[in-house]
Amino acid sequence: MKIALLGYGTVGRGVDEIISARVPQVEVARILELPDRLSDPRMTSNFDEILADGEVELVVECMGGIEPARTYIMAALAAGKHVVTSNKAVVAAHFAQFASAAQASGVGLYIEAAVGGGIPWIAGIEKARRVDEVTSFSGIMNGTTNYIVDAMRKQGAEFDDVLAEAQRLGYAERDPSADIDGIDVANKTIISASVAFDVACEKNLPVTGIRTLTKADLDLFAAHGRTVKLLGRGVREGGRYAVAVEPVAVPVESLEANVPGNFNLVTLDATTVGELKFYGQGAGSLPTGNAIVQDVLDCATGARRPAYDFSRGLDYDPTLLRADYVFRTTAELDGEEPYGKGAYLVRDLTAEGARAILSEALLADPTSFMAALS
Amino acid sequence: MKIALLGYGTVGRGVDEIISARVPQVEVARILELPDRLSDPRMTSNFDEILADGEVELVVECMGGIEPARTYIMAALAAGKHVVTSNKAVVAAHFAQFASAAQASGVGLYIEAAVGGGIPWIAGIEKARRVDEVTSFSGIMNGTTNYIVDAMRKQGAEFDDVLAEAQRLGYAERDPSADIDGIDVANKTIISASVAFDVACEKNLPVTGIRTLTKADLDLFAAHGRTVKLLGRGVREGGRYAVAVEPVAVPVESLEANVPGNFNLVTLDATTVGELKFYGQGAGSLPTGNAIVQDVLDCATGARRPAYDFSRGLDYDPTLLRADYVFRTTAELDGEEPYGKGAYLVRDLTAEGARAILSEALLADPTSFMAALS
Repeated sequence: MKIALLGYGTVGRGVDEIISARVPQVEVARILELPDRLSDPRMTSNFDEILADGEVELVVECMGGIEPARTYIMAALAAGKHVVTSNKAVVAAHFAQFASAAQASGVGLYIEAAVGGGIPWIAGIEKARRVDEVTSFSGIMNGTTNYIVDAMRKQGAEFDDVLAEAQRLGYAERDPSADIDGIDVANKTIISASVAFDVACEKNLPVTGIRTLTKADLDLFAAHGRTVKLLGRGVREGGRYAVAVEPVAVPVESLEANVPGNFNLVTLDATTVGELKFYGQGAGSLPTGNAIVQDVLDCATGARRPAYDFSRGLDYDPTLLRADYVFRTTAELDGEEPYGKGAYLVRDLTAEGARAILSEALLADPTSFMAALS
Repeated sequence: MKIALLGYGTVGRGVDEIISARVPQVEVARILELPDRLSDPRMTSNFDEILADGEVELVVECMGGIEPARTYIMAALAAGKHVVTSNKAVVAAHFAQFASAAQASGVGLYIEAAVGGGIPWIAGIEKARRVDEVTSFSGIMNGTTNYIVDAMRKQGAEFDDVLAEAQRLGYAERDPSADIDGIDVANKTIISASVAFDVACEKNLPVTGIRTLTKADLDLFAAHGRTVKLLGRGVREGGRYAVAVEPVAVPVESLEANVPGNFNLVTLDATTVGELKFYGQGAGSLPTGNAIVQDVLDCATGARRPAYDFSRGLDYDPTLLRADYVFRTTAELDGEEPYGKGAYLVRDLTAEGARAILSEALLADPTSFMAALS
């Protein structure tokens, strides 16, 4: 099968390397690159050339960002080419549109690499759903923030110092907002919920990151036998579902608490199989490239042809996600109980309600931090 | 697709329940049962009836044990019926024979349920191998022994008391030898290595269980920041491979150390995807039934048709698995260093060499215990 790569950054190069070394039945025939970077005879800066090439049956989009990725994906699908993408932002924003375009053209839409890097998470959810209902999922879906919290905990270091080190190592972007504010996890949570619950997932979900987490916060939770992880979560009950992204204070003996460095750990719960967890490299050239190549092989061999139709008509009901929350803030709170120095427990809040309380607290005390108790 | 179940115990009933409730495209048309238990019109005690039923395209063997399971599986394959089995003992003993019979008849042989219950481990290894070389694997593959060690550690209880409780809860057999002596894990390790390394795995591997583990041993390892897990392991380097089953003293902050109750956690390491871990229920009616139903669906939809040919000609080389070992024994050892009360560290042994030392020590002190340091 001949394929084209849109983008030749970290992920695109990983795909090219893996296919040329290990997958003789697939050929990277065309590569879309910027005009000043056309260093390979397969490269072009003109997407229409790729679109018009009838021998290219499948397009791998690994450019990132919303545009022109969205336009190229829609054009490829309309032209009857299968699409494989690692771009969580564009899939989270336009999943239903892509899915119906793929269905209309009778081609496949493959998004494994958009969540959890090399972890077979999307295919794992789809496999579970062949037999079971998926009733909930949760996970550490962002390696950068896991690296930061893990290093803060193990080295007793402050957030800013660890972030600077992560940037030096290439684990964090120069502008780390998408990671540390939970945006990246929100996109992955939207995609996971869409696949797990068969719904065009609500995009206006409660999202809280770890920007204000301090060493003192970790020490406080450690005294309660917990540590903090940034989790994306979703739950379905009957015809309703809810999703959220927030710091969660998990017991130190949980698997989540012990996920090291920039690894990911994602969990689903389903009717007959019960709890399944998947762990691995959530990012990186070769792991993410591997996920793309697996999608390409699923398409080439006919082993898997995902069909997302989101026809279930589930209702978004944010009251489904409830927990006790700890707030560390100098702002005033209602109904709080002491939890430790400067921190307060507020019982039985919805994720949305907790986020609203935090938003208000941040106005009075911009350093405020919040975590759900799992 | 019409299928037959051979055996209607815990697993067989789980398969029947899942298919009748959730999988309309598959019908359990025949069930092989003992003559005095024919309680359902689908049941027969005559295997030849099932074999002669041309409408039955696939046979699920979930009887356990070697015979008559082996004979029935071979007869079904020879008759051109696909075979799905959860029977680790018969697959470990006759994998190559089954695989070549399946190949000769052009039918599928599916063994997901034989290792790790509902965890998609075998399919996960096969998927990784489409792209990567699997260079090693290891795992907690036996829920009974994990339950015992976890309860000993959390309750500060002795082995015999926890075993009795596990038997009461139905987690351990009345004769627990296959679990606590590592036989069950050895079968699963042989199967995992066969799939991961594409080799008819050596059956004479070093196998040590946890029968002599004491609360004092766990306390000793805890003082070193470790706890004990019974692991099956395999490694491949170039044209050689090795496998072993033994207690391993893992760091308390590892994921393995924190696997609770009767759960399983299995790990593979592969060229481009890196480390992948899979966690879930390793046994039980519905999780194991789920794995069987997934195999049936892979066969019915054509999504997956495993082909095991073991043609790689790898050499078994037990010197590949080396570690430092701790022995708690009153027997005399060579080259030992103190590790704590009554325990000694011996550095850089092969798994086979360590097992030989333990075997000799057990003659002098039948309570001797050994664990590798990971």
